[in-house]
This record gives sequence, structure tokens and C-alpha cells, in this order.
Amino acid sequence: MISNKMVGLVQNSSVIRAMFEEGKRLASIYGAENVYDFSLGNPSVEPPKEIKEEILNIMNTEDANLVHGYMSNSGYEDVRTAIADSINKRFGTAFLENNIIMTVGAAGGLNVILKTLLNPGDEVITFAPFFGEYRNYVSNFDGELVVVSPNTVDFQPNLSEFETKITKKTKVVIVNTPNNPTGVVYSEATIKGLADIMNRKQKEFGTSIYLISDEPYRELVYDGVKVPYLTKYYNNTIIGYSFSKSLSLPGERIGYLVIPNEVDDYADVAGAANVANRILGFVNAPSLMQRVVARCLDAEVDVASYNRNRELLYNSLSEYGYTCIKPEGAFYLFVKALEEDDKAFAAAAKNYNILIVPGSSFGCPGFCRIAYCVAFETIQRSLPGFKKLAEEYRIGDRS
Amino acid sequence: MISNKMVGLVQNSSVIRAMFEEGKRLASIYGAENVYDFSLGNPSVEPPKEIKEEILNIMNTEDANLVHGYMSNSGYEDVRTAIADSINKRFGTAFLENNIIMTVGAAGGLNVILKTLLNPGDEVITFAPFFGEYRNYVSNFDGELVVVSPNTVDFQPNLSEFETKITKKTKVVIVNTPNNPTGVVYSEATIKGLADIMNRKQKEFGTSIYLISDEPYRELVYDGVKVPYLTKYYNNTIIGYSFSKSLSLPGERIGYLVIPNEVDDYADVAGAANVANRILGFVNAPSLMQRVVARCLDAEVDVASYNRNRELLYNSLSEYGYTCIKPEGAFYLFVKALEEDDKAFAAAAKNYNILIVPGSSFGCPGFCRIAYCVAFETIQRSLPGFKKLAEEYRIGDRS
Repeated sequence: MISNKMVGLVQNSSVIRAMFEEGKRLASIYGAENVYDFSLGNPSVEPPKEIKEEILNIMNTEDANLVHGYMSNSGYEDVRTAIADSINKRFGTAFLENNIIMTVGAAGGLNVILKTLLNPGDEVITFAPFFGEYRNYVSNFDGELVVVSPNTVDFQPNLSEFETKITKKTKVVIVNTPNNPTGVVYSEATIKGLADIMNRKQKEFGTSIYLISDEPYRELVYDGVKVPYLTKYYNNTIIGYSFSKSLSLPGERIGYLVIPNEVDDYADVAGAANVANRILGFVNAPSLMQRVVARCLDAEVDVASYNRNRELLYNSLSEYGYTCIKPEGAFYLFVKALEEDDKAFAAAAKNYNILIVPGSSFGCPGFCRIAYCVAFETIQRSLPGFKKLAEEYRIGDRS
Repeated sequence: MISNKMVGLVQNSSVIRAMFEEGKRLASIYGAENVYDFSLGNPSVEPPKEIKEEILNIMNTEDANLVHGYMSNSGYEDVRTAIADSINKRFGTAFLENNIIMTVGAAGGLNVILKTLLNPGDEVITFAPFFGEYRNYVSNFDGELVVVSPNTVDFQPNLSEFETKITKKTKVVIVNTPNNPTGVVYSEATIKGLADIMNRKQKEFGTSIYLISDEPYRELVYDGVKVPYLTKYYNNTIIGYSFSKSLSLPGERIGYLVIPNEVDDYADVAGAANVANRILGFVNAPSLMQRVVARCLDAEVDVASYNRNRELLYNSLSEYGYTCIKPEGAFYLFVKALEEDDKAFAAAAKNYNILIVPGSSFGCPGFCRIAYCVAFETIQRSLPGFKKLAEEYRIGDRS
């Protein structure tokens, strides 16, 4: 009796759900400490101490009907001003309150802006490997997801293929940097090349092509890498941000959209996004958490912990003979499967109680994603299994 | 550049937004205390003290990564169990954790279940007057909203017209009791009649017709009125609940769906709703608030305050010659406009700085909604204006 669309969506969902169930099954047999679940992007690092402090402060000092009440569908004005000011200070932009829409996480924000922009049949381009949910978000509004194939050398977007895939029907391009699942940060050269192509194609077709930058991992970068702020490179850029990873609050569903004045039809886009936020059923981003994050814009999770995980995992896997690109951001490592079939490789890893996600879930077969947002000890304890797995393939037991 | 669908939605939205802006304009001229804004359903009564207590308790005793982290898309298992237990205790039902899906308010829940059930072109029946957002929620999934015309005698649903409007394409019926905008509670006789018709039509057409009960106002009732629990009257019932009004937390976006085992294709429906919650961009209901409401299931807002408002407003308007049905629940009073055109009547009220919403926004022209979830003093100060407005019509200045 469920809708035809949901039948397909539920079937596609079952791969990851099956992995989750499998993790629970393995834990019940071997003990949770002997199962190495690298499947989920659930932050292991605690929220910064300011989160608790400010929740208590707000509860003790602000009016309860304000803190828990309705506000504009786009969010509290003081919160939006605080966020605009913080972005301006960090990136030299000039946003005001009316450029910010508070959203139910980045997932909510992406749905709001896609509802705002897409007519059925409009094309949305993204670059493999990509966060698999984009396919669902675009499908929610009957858009067509067009995927640019992966560049498996350095995982920067394949810009020459991108150029050939832009058509008159291209309405949106989604980028995600630092990237899930590779941990790669798109370089400034990449961004400039992307913007150049999009500007030329807009002129050629006489269309507006919006660049949506999905950046929940912006603050999680290593070795001082800079993540370009995309509104400065291309006028029709809209930012989707989330505090899920930067403040370890993924369950709270709090993020925002940035819609700059420079985007084509700014007033219509911002006005419609405000309405879309309401009618999609979000109504507004959770109120207490809006007020909390506004007070914690300079707070940071302990990125050094993720970095320690990254170094141990990358160095160990490299030593064991795995091929992987060293992540510059986020908390994912994208490793080359030791056989062509990434699903078979993930299944082989499971024999060592190691749970990793096949790259085909991200449009990039032949690789697997390891989410290293886990306890350091989990990585330490998993290493013998990774080593044996590599040996197994080397001596030809498997491949 | 925005989508065609959004162009229409933004235009339809502008009536209420214009009222909101008008309220701000009037307040800047006459002072906020001299403007009587009855347009919004934003609770004026404080959340019960348990909300603050339990937020502080949770922050001081529970693990931060649990409190703010990801959980199953359907919500924490302990929270869902606590809610099922609470419903069972109150209504003699037998729900378990897997009958409950935590949602981003009732608005989120309705969108989740409509995405789960509707194919394009499926019909959704509701009864005028109705919450105008239903039109948008159904449109989100390309369903067709079919409206049963209002029974303006007692505002119980018009069941004989309902029966004629059910077709093979009817997939969902939405009821909202206590009702927004009338404050009427659908009687047990109404519910039994509704269930009887739906059962017969299911047999006649060989279809499943789901009854969605949208009940954010369940706890706000007066004079000991009972609100029937609809799963007990009709097997294919799904409940959409919100804590927005019962605990004065509308900004927090926290509610749940109840999907009983008895609904047709229970496993598919519950499984798909779990997936829909994720891919619509909600991902999960806000995590801290899930944990808070689970600890506050017996807490209550001060309904007596709303009752005091209700009595003063109803008695005064009746005395001034207005026709209105005495609300049994919620915090709305639906008054007959003093001229045929409810929009003109609302405009006339605005001359006394009284802001009320025309009934045509609820599919019921000729009436206006007064949201009395305001300070008692606001009602007191507004009364001379209501009185003069009635006199104006009586002496023929306006009508």
C-alpha cells in the first residue's frame, strides 16, 4: 500500500540498514569491543564544553516562550545576524541577516533549496564519489541527478567531463568539500575552473545555474588546509551548512543556508526558501539549538582527535599495502578495494569484524569508505584485521 | 528562476505574511500594547517547569554524544518505548516502541506519512474548515486534496457529503480534532460514523483508506471533554502528534507518528516512514528534545489560562452580538463575520488594531479565526474594539 516511489527507495536503503543490523548481530556474538564499525559518520568526539554551558545559560536567563516558541520560518533574526557576522569575519564576505535561513541540518537545507529551485525534469549535476542521499533529495522534487564520473587519481572533480554534461536543463550543481566519502578538499584551482565553466555555460544557454555547496565538514580539516568560500568565486552560489560535525550535534538537526544578494533573482529565491522551509514540514530549525549555536560560533570540537585517528589509520593501511589518498578533511578515508568488486571486498572485511561501506553507494565502485570518527582504540584494535585481510589477498586466498 | 510550483505557493503564502507585516506596522504606529494580534497559534502559556528541569538533568547526567548524536531515523528506542507506554496507560492501547516514529513536529510527521502513502493523483479528503497547510503537504507529493464542505451549524464533519466524495482514488482522510480553526472536538458519534463509512468504502472499492489523525491540540480541552483515541475506532488509523501545544514547545519541532500493527501492510508502512523521515531531510527528530519530552509525558501546560481567555472572549463576543460556537478545545474561536465577505470583515477589524484570520484561509468563508493564545490583558484591551466593530455593523455604517 506504500507509494511506488517509496518501494524503490526502501529497497535502495536496505544495503546500509543491513550493514547496521549486521553490526549489531556481530556485536552480540563477539562483543561490541571486538566489532569495528566504520560504517557511520556519527562523530565520536564530544561537543565542545560551550554547548552545555550555553544550554544552561539560555535556560537560566532567557524567556521560555522565546526559547521554545515560533519565530520567523527562516529563524531568529538575532541568530541569523550572529551567523552572518561570523561568516563575514572569517571569510571577508558581507552577509546580513536576510542572507541566512536557519534549517533542520544541511539535509533540511538542501531539500529546502532544491524545492525552491527545481521543476520536474531539471538536471542536477554532482561529482562522484558523492553522498548517496543527493539522489533521494533530487528525486524528492522529480529532478534528474547527473553524475560526473570519478577521477580516481586525486579525487578532484573531473572538470572536462563536467563541461560536457551541462545542458540547457542544468539548474543546479552540488559540490561537497571537504568531501564525503574521500576526505579530499577541492582546491582553489578546481573551484576557479568550475566557476569558469559554469559562467560560460550560463552565457551560452542564457540560463541560471546555481552552485550548491554542501559543507558540513568545513571545520574538520588537517595540516592547515584552506577550504575556499565558494560565494567568492561564483555569484550563483548557495551554501548549505550544518553544525552536526563542527560541534558534534548531528542528532540536533541544526544548520543554515546562505543565499547571497548576488544570486539571480535573490528576492524570489530567499522568499521561496522561507516558504519551502515551512511547507516541507520543517516549519523552522529547532529553536533552542538555534540560540545555542549562535553563542558557540567560535567553539571547536577537538579536531586533533580525528587527526590522530587519521594518521594511525592512513599510515597503517599504507604500510599494509592498501592504496588510499590521505584525507585533508572530514573523517573518512577512501581505500581502494583489493579486488574489483567493492561489495565483495567489504564482505571479506566483515570476516574480521570490520564494517566499511562499499564505494558503489557513493557512485564510485572499486573503493570503500572507512569512517574513522570512532574511538582511537577501535582503530588500534582493528589494525590486525586490516593487516590479515591484505595478506589474504596478497597470497591469493581471495583474489 | 524559482520553480513553478513555488511561484504559486509563495503567492498563496503572502496573505498571512502580509498580516504579520501589518501587525508590525501597526505596532510601530500605535505601540505593541495597543495592537491585538490574534493571528498566530503561538502558545502564550509557559512550558511546564519540568521542561527546564529535565533539560538541566539531561545535560548534567547523560552522555553528550548520546544526547546530541545520531540514533535510528525513527528515534531513540527508550524514548519511543516511554511514549508507547504513556499512550497505553492513558487510552488502553497496546503499542510498542516499533509503533512510534519520532518526527520533526506534527508537520514533519504528516509529510513523512504522506510521502510514505501517496502516489501522484491519489486523493486526500479533509473537512472544512481545515488547517490550510494540508493543501501544501498534499501538494508536496502531487496528491489531490478533496475538501468536504463545512457544516456551519456545529462544525462536526458533514458525513453524508464525505461518503459521496470517497472514490477508488481516495488513499487518505485527514481529521484534526480538537480542530483548528473552530476549537470543536469531533464527537464519538462522529468518529463512529466516519469509521463506518470508511470501512464500507474500503470493502466496496477493495482499497485501503488510511485515516490520519492530526492531533496537536489533544491535551488542550475544556469542561472535561473527552477526545476519542481514533486507533480504537478504525484499524487503518495513523496518529500525528506534536508537543508544540501540549508542552508549549512549538519552536522545538518535536512530535511523533503512531503506526499501529493493525494498519494494512504495517511492516511496509512503518519501514517506509522510517526511510521517508531520513530522505525528506528531517533525518530524525531533534535529539535532546526527544529525551526531554520522554521525561515530561505527564507534564501539562496551564490549560486554565487558556480557559480564562476562552471564557472572557466567548462571553464578551456573545454579549456584543457576535455568533460563535463555544470552543471545546485548542485555543481558537471561530466567529461569524458580520458581513458576507470575511476578508472585508477582517479588514474592518484591523481599523481597531484587531488582527484575525479570514475563514477562507481554512476553506470556510464567512467566518474568522481568533487565536486566543495571547495574554489575558490583550483580550481585555481588545474588547472595546470588538464592541465598537459590532456597533458599527449594527447601525449600518459598514454593512
